Amino acid sequence: MVYDDSSTPPRRRTGLWFLGARGSVATTATLGALALARGQAPVTGLVSELPEVARAGLVGIGDLVIGGHDVGGSMLDRAHELAASGVVPAATVAALADDLAAVDARVRPGATGTADRATADRLQADLEEFRAAHDLERVVVVDLTSTEPPAPQAHTVGTLAELERRLDDGTAPLPPSSLYAYASFRAGCPVVCFTPSTGPRTPALEELAKTLHLPWAGRDGKTGETLLKATLAPMFATRALAVRSWSAFNILGGGDGRTLADPAAAASKTATKAMTVEAVLGYPVEGPVRIDHVADLGDWKTAWDHVTFEGFLGTRMRMQVTWEGCDSALAAPLVLDLARLVARAHEVGLAGPLGELGFFFKDPLGSTEHALAAQWQTLTRWCATLGDGAPDAGGAAASDGAA
Amino acid sequence: MVYDDSSTPPRRRTGLWFLGARGSVATTATLGALALARGQAPVTGLVSELPEVARAGLVGIGDLVIGGHDVGGSMLDRAHELAASGVVPAATVAALADDLAAVDARVRPGATGTADRATADRLQADLEEFRAAHDLERVVVVDLTSTEPPAPQAHTVGTLAELERRLDDGTAPLPPSSLYAYASFRAGCPVVCFTPSTGPRTPALEELAKTLHLPWAGRDGKTGETLLKATLAPMFATRALAVRSWSAFNILGGGDGRTLADPAAAASKTATKAMTVEAVLGYPVEGPVRIDHVADLGDWKTAWDHVTFEGFLGTRMRMQVTWEGCDSALAAPLVLDLARLVARAHEVGLAGPLGELGFFFKDPLGSTEHALAAQWQTLTRWCATLGDGAPDAGGAAASDGAA
Amino acid sequence: MVYDDSSTPPRRRTGLWFLGARGSVATTATLGALALARGQAPVTGLVSELPEVARAGLVGIGDLVIGGHDVGGSMLDRAHELAASGVVPAATVAALADDLAAVDARVRPGATGTADRATADRLQADLEEFRAAHDLERVVVVDLTSTEPPAPQAHTVGTLAELERRLDDGTAPLPPSSLYAYASFRAGCPVVCFTPSTGPRTPALEELAKTLHLPWAGRDGKTGETLLKATLAPMFATRALAVRSWSAFNILGGGDGRTLADPAAAASKTATKAMTVEAVLGYPVEGPVRIDHVADLGDWKTAWDHVTFEGFLGTRMRMQVTWEGCDSALAAPLVLDLARLVARAHEVGLAGPLGELGFFFKDPLGSTEHALAAQWQTLTRWCATLGDGAPDAGGAAASDGAA
Amino acid sequence: MVYDDSSTPPRRRTGLWFLGARGSVATTATLGALALARGQAPVTGLVSELPEVARAGLVGIGDLVIGGHDVGGSMLDRAHELAASGVVPAATVAALADDLAAVDARVRPGATGTADRATADRLQADLEEFRAAHDLERVVVVDLTSTEPPAPQAHTVGTLAELERRLDDGTAPLPPSSLYAYASFRAGCPVVCFTPSTGPRTPALEELAKTLHLPWAGRDGKTGETLLKATLAPMFATRALAVRSWSAFNILGGGDGRTLADPAAAASKTATKAMTVEAVLGYPVEGPVRIDHVADLGDWKTAWDHVTFEGFLGTRMRMQVTWEGCDSALAAPLVLDLARLVARAHEVGLAGPLGELGFFFKDPLGSTEHALAAQWQTLTRWCATLGDGAPDAGGAAASDGAA
Repeated sequence: MVYDDSSTPPRRRTGLWFLGARGSVATTATLGALALARGQAPVTGLVSELPEVARAGLVGIGDLVIGGHDVGGSMLDRAHELAASGVVPAATVAALADDLAAVDARVRPGATGTADRATADRLQADLEEFRAAHDLERVVVVDLTSTEPPAPQAHTVGTLAELERRLDDGTAPLPPSSLYAYASFRAGCPVVCFTPSTGPRTPALEELAKTLHLPWAGRDGKTGETLLKATLAPMFATRALAVRSWSAFNILGGGDGRTLADPAAAASKTATKAMTVEAVLGYPVEGPVRIDHVADLGDWKTAWDHVTFEGFLGTRMRMQVTWEGCDSALAAPLVLDLARLVARAHEVGLAGPLGELGFFFKDPLGSTEHALAAQWQTLTRWCATLGDGAPDAGGAAASDGAA
Repeated sequence: MVYDDSSTPPRRRTGLWFLGARGSVATTATLGALALARGQAPVTGLVSELPEVARAGLVGIGDLVIGGHDVGGSMLDRAHELAASGVVPAATVAALADDLAAVDARVRPGATGTADRATADRLQADLEEFRAAHDLERVVVVDLTSTEPPAPQAHTVGTLAELERRLDDGTAPLPPSSLYAYASFRAGCPVVCFTPSTGPRTPALEELAKTLHLPWAGRDGKTGETLLKATLAPMFATRALAVRSWSAFNILGGGDGRTLADPAAAASKTATKAMTVEAVLGYPVEGPVRIDHVADLGDWKTAWDHVTFEGFLGTRMRMQVTWEGCDSALAAPLVLDLARLVARAHEVGLAGPLGELGFFFKDPLGSTEHALAAQWQTLTRWCATLGDGAPDAGGAAASDGAA
Repeated sequence: MVYDDSSTPPRRRTGLWFLGARGSVATTATLGALALARGQAPVTGLVSELPEVARAGLVGIGDLVIGGHDVGGSMLDRAHELAASGVVPAATVAALADDLAAVDARVRPGATGTADRATADRLQADLEEFRAAHDLERVVVVDLTSTEPPAPQAHTVGTLAELERRLDDGTAPLPPSSLYAYASFRAGCPVVCFTPSTGPRTPALEELAKTLHLPWAGRDGKTGETLLKATLAPMFATRALAVRSWSAFNILGGGDGRTLADPAAAASKTATKAMTVEAVLGYPVEGPVRIDHVADLGDWKTAWDHVTFEGFLGTRMRMQVTWEGCDSALAAPLVLDLARLVARAHEVGLAGPLGELGFFFKDPLGSTEHALAAQWQTLTRWCATLGDGAPDAGGAAASDGAA
Repeated sequence: MVYDDSSTPPRRRTGLWFLGARGSVATTATLGALALARGQAPVTGLVSELPEVARAGLVGIGDLVIGGHDVGGSMLDRAHELAASGVVPAATVAALADDLAAVDARVRPGATGTADRATADRLQADLEEFRAAHDLERVVVVDLTSTEPPAPQAHTVGTLAELERRLDDGTAPLPPSSLYAYASFRAGCPVVCFTPSTGPRTPALEELAKTLHLPWAGRDGKTGETLLKATLAPMFATRALAVRSWSAFNILGGGDGRTLADPAAAASKTATKAMTVEAVLGYPVEGPVRIDHVADLGDWKTAWDHVTFEGFLGTRMRMQVTWEGCDSALAAPLVLDLARLVARAHEVGLAGPLGELGFFFKDPLGSTEHALAAQWQTLTRWCATLGDGAPDAGGAAASDGAA
């Protein structure tokens, strides 16, 4: 099935701004969006093209204008690397090299150092200029930067007023992901937290989003092992089988693997990876969750899960799963899905953490549901309500669609 | 959690009649029911003890009276074999040996030869005597006999009238499972088809069940690999990932393994095992489904599934699952669940194939849904409606509960 | 490590004639030989470049001249297919396209029909012309044609004289692989049986090889699952662990997978695959050996082996292995190794089945040893004796090297 | 095959002294030795009963007298625990309870605190009294205590004289395993290091063993994952396949799992586990080696190894192995094997680290060979030389058998 833009409603040009724009996921997503818009790629992997989701009245892929923040590198170099390791087709990179370079030209220097007022203003200005320059109805910011270590200090700033003071003072204890979130909200942009980093999840930033009536979604895209857990754990629950241990080992290379070889960064990731099983089952389950760097695997991740469980009359049984996936290929379409869905939520006037998007995340902010099938049902029902007010549904004003 | 009978409503003594009563599954189910009734076993594995299902107003485990048909052997011998291979605890067998012998004394000689009137009458009389002798409100018949080869001739008997004539003539082309179904319906008993054998699935027998307003359910209990398929295939579907191949290999020992080493019998089983993935995904998926006998595994079954799938921009990925389960331990509690649920359906006056029980079966008769989570939702909603008319709900007559 | 031809002895131009020259293995081997000769590929996978084997005084890769028999197709087309499925680098195919076309021009029409004198003469003439045209010291014939079903009739021809008569009569019950072997021997060429087909393994053909004092080697290259069995079974033996079952499942696509989807052809293959474990352990071990065709896997083969074993005081344990290999990439270097080693054996005057090459084969003709490490030791000791008379050893005549 | 004592030579009563006598391995080994001596168990798992090893002229199992050091607990309690978790048969424990209690009565309090002269003297006296009380020709000490963290300080004591002084001073920086080794050597006993702890591997203790002309062997029994590595790595080497990564994950419960959940202790273990692959292949191979505690697994250990490798023309392939073993059942027979072999080495007058026993160890002291098949060949050749001087060979004096 190839992406077909012919039936979409009046075009709503929408910005998609990647934090970490020259990384593997952002580059794959950009390449895919360009290929899809030209009808040169199938819609495989795009949840937003399934009828149950598409009915939400989403912006067309061809109406997305992509830009972003990053430091160093180039999207084209990254795309060639991805082609060399089999993540994207070399022919697609060759065919779209000019388009990719055009997107890359819109990438602005990102935040690296301390969280101060000047940097925040600069980031905000980048977003506002991007929106104006391309005549965009809105811009969705998606955080795809490297996973940060947990940032407990960020949570100590209890109010927006205090945060503003400390930004002025140059003492705001925000990690880069949170500074980006601040600038994004200030620019009137919804935010998607695709990593486990802190981002907008601090009291002061949540207050800011609320004040400005902006939606946001997170966190940590559910692409592999956790996807399996969210799928398999409910099977044990509804069959009344008692899970006794769930051990999870991940090996991966690439930039993500290098980042997660740092125990501090890995701590953020294993925390979100560990919550699913217990959240679904409702009781504690022992077992390690580990991420190890194996450079030779490149952008490919192999996960091995080993589960022991108990059945009737105490009989002990085992299940093992090996998942050999390509993280960028799994994540990239979800990024496009989220951008389209969050843009639609913004269009219809929704605000706050969008719990209905838990289907996409390891740690579903705004929701307590971790079972994939239940998340799917929540998502598709929500899409139906969003669709009722869609421009192509020809009727109610956008704000009617708000929950 | 231990089974607690204290809060159950006025007792409704219910018969549970096993076809193949001295086999591994029936013996494990019987032992488990006895242990549960005495509070000597946890309810692990019993779906009918989960609150979402228990609310249907089910008969207490302690109110089940068990009997059955079989040829040769003894339940106690079988129980000792099961204990030796680790399927059931030896201590439980020792503690319940007398009770098990009492059940075994109710087992009557089964059907082995041709399908004639005399045998049908004998089987029917066994059921009626059992019901009368134990003052039972109803008797649910569960087919746990060895898997038969497909029986295409049985489907050529187009009407009940023709079937009756051919039984009189001694020319009825019914396999034993269908003769049992005939006798069970004639005795006014609902039937559960826990194997892939033909059973009541012929035009004449379906007509008989309809005429007598009896419910029945099937077929082929979903205990291992197919349970995984019903769980995992929807994940690929809702993530828009294109499954390219799904190869499934099963090795098992025990009596079931010996039976399925016969290609004719295996044909029935692999047919039901193969349908799930394509039914969920909606497109053809290549890949073998095999069952091989490895005597050394005893009652344990190991399944290896290998799945290839395609994601964004055509990236190819793989998943493998190894399932090491004990078939009897997985099947036995489902048998008790089904007996309780079908008894309740009979009590409230339902008839025909109970599609709402698809959660339990590889080939869900009366339903086209194969995704486990969707089947779970259907089941639990149905249980809620059944419960509205339950005796312990104190009010409406049983027939009000009928859908 | 890149192949280095500088230190090789005086050149001995040697022919390498592939039966099935346009198949995946022959094309990969040809491409590899061309790349190695130009120093454009590393020697990874080439056993004959390990010092323990290279000391046998082998012909240089650059001195191999390749031709063969086949029907239809072209090596270049096949090479492009292999590049598309990731078996060989596309850049290598592009760089060597002309050379590959030159080899392809030497491919002659193969045998397809009945085994008669005229065909035998034609095949023989092809080999003799090839040797003369390229001024070759000798030509080694390697059978890489599709696996044939077992050919019991071929064994009923008890003597060479009888075979000659029946070839004259046009009633010789030889499968193509055996007719090729007849023609090869008649042309004075040693033969390598890389498939499980009958080839020279009939009384009459063995007599022919003996009469003409020609060496030959077989059979069925050991590239994946059987390689693992030959490696792992000795571990159980020397640790006194009792293997109770060994189940082996293979899924593969490509031409080989299509051929083996035919149960008759698969019978030849599963027979050679099944013998290793019992041969090493010395006692019968139950468990299926299966090969299934999954087109989506292309030239890649995945094997899953499941082993149960018993240890001290009867404790039961398990091992599973999953092997994800590319058959052509695994087989191709072994083909070059065998051609070089058999050429050397011919040079030093050896005749009959070369049991010392069992390291390479599932069914090691001329040897009863199946343990890989023992086969390696036999091979390397033999190579040392061959090397004693090697031209580069500066002295003794070739025939001195004969064992 | 059941152990048959009838053909053994004149009895040589031999002591077997376990450090950690009430642990799982020692208890399993003791139970097995008792059962074997009575002909109540098969010899499965006993390498020393294979003809190639038995020819060394080993002491009979029935001539072993067992004692040991430990703190707290009882062997019978431990045996019941092992029976409950399926490691040993409950019937065997019941049948041998009295014998086990008799062994337990010989267990003396072990070393727990600092390494001082008084403790060393006490441990030495325990061994001498044991030898005298039971009229033993010799006593072999086997260290089965919990794995210690690396003890770099122990290596700073450069000479025996300095060690003696510091023991007198009470400042000897020896971990318990080394203090036991000191006492054992002083008592004239050979030592087997079955754990990765320091034991006799310090300059001063090696000097002591040399001075007293005592043999010792180590270290860290090779029972599971490392056994697989030692078996599989040579396959890659002799096939010229380039291993690119080897990731190894172990999950286990039991006391060993608890000990190794301590990163300091695990460091000793992962160090010995990591060396095999690189030692066999001769080049560095990346990949994590991890041990995690999963209490639910009890005495069972599951290892998952994931290997990537490169073949001809750079083709990338993968192998995975899952090993589900029972550590005590795998280790216990090796302990008996080692006791018999080291006793024989002592009998024939050998001294120093016995590199010929590398077959049994992860870190083969006195040898650089890590390939299992090569270690097997070394072992069996050595056994042949030991057998030449065996009492039952009726000839040369014992000392003639020394290498």
